[in-house]
Amino acid sequence: MRMKTEQTRQRIVDAAYQCFWRSGFTRTSIDSIADRAKLTKRTIYSYYQSKDDLLAAVLNYHNDLAGKRLSHIGDQMPADPDGMIESFFDQLARWVAATPRWAGPGFTKLVVELAHLPGHPARSIARRHKATTETWLAERLSKAKVAFPAERAREIMLLMEGSMALTLIHGNRTYIDAAKDASRRLIKSGK
Amino acid sequence: MRMKTEQTRQRIVDAAYQCFWRSGFTRTSIDSIADRAKLTKRTIYSYYQSKDDLLAAVLNYHNDLAGKRLSHIGDQMPADPDGMIESFFDQLARWVAATPRWAGPGFTKLVVELAHLPGHPARSIARRHKATTETWLAERLSKAKVAFPAERAREIMLLMEGSMALTLIHGNRTYIDAAKDASRRLIKSGK
Repeated sequence: MRMKTEQTRQRIVDAAYQCFWRSGFTRTSIDSIADRAKLTKRTIYSYYQSKDDLLAAVLNYHNDLAGKRLSHIGDQMPADPDGMIESFFDQLARWVAATPRWAGPGFTKLVVELAHLPGHPARSIARRHKATTETWLAERLSKAKVAFPAERAREIMLLMEGSMALTLIHGNRTYIDAAKDASRRLIKSGK
Repeated sequence: MRMKTEQTRQRIVDAAYQCFWRSGFTRTSIDSIADRAKLTKRTIYSYYQSKDDLLAAVLNYHNDLAGKRLSHIGDQMPADPDGMIESFFDQLARWVAATPRWAGPGFTKLVVELAHLPGHPARSIARRHKATTETWLAERLSKAKVAFPAERAREIMLLMEGSMALTLIHGNRTYIDAAKDASRRLIKSGK
């Protein structure tokens, strides 16, 4: 029974994530989440009191998931700086290509949508996620003996975020390749 | 009378832009646009048939405006590459700092919000705007005798877009400064 409950909870969170990601938070209704999860609205409300509650659950779950995805990306990265950068952006490009109707980076999208609500929990969760990714990158670069790893990690974050926005706008992977190339030159540029 | 009509039209477009920018397209109602423009809903509907019509008008107007803003930014830029980059990002930082409750870059925001509607006119207008900015930057860099100006312009676009997203997420200008610094090193990195 307990198992069943956890499965249902997960099904709701998965459906909500898909809906929020594709259509945005505002545009998503509890009805559309119920449809996607193949559950009744009543069942959803027995787990989550409101759409905001559900958003918090989705963000926390995907923060954990994003952490696991980083480890997975890290496992596939070679140890040399050039190979590391290449692998990082190639995995990003594969994620974009493998997702039908890719709708942009999830955390950034939610923050952009909720930007007019400065105290919204989505912002602090997104901020934490970005900071975690930046630190993770800096540690990797440091192990690979790249000079000024914290500065280079920040620049790679900028190029990655920029490439996600411009890939969404232009609809092709030119910008991911350009970000990879720029990152490779920056890690050799000293300071 | 004709003058009055144009003024009213402009007042509606200005109010709609402010509303869309701050709250997003979906969240904005014709009522809230009417409130901000201090006009009746009826007047608004006598100019624009729907919120989508109004969005197209807002985007076209702001595409023109963005062109003028680029010329203005260009006028203030020194001719040397380093000074050019510095001025470009400093003007960006001043725009962010001077705007109370800055809500992110307008065109990118709308595309992110409307990403699930691939044929939406907002996307082609945003794409055109980004392409214009990139070409404009490449021409400036070329005049300043920077090597590979098209490649460098693309990288500066990536860093600028990334800095807008991360400034919105983190709430401080660290990322604009980092983007400026990376751009300066990239224009010296050759190819």
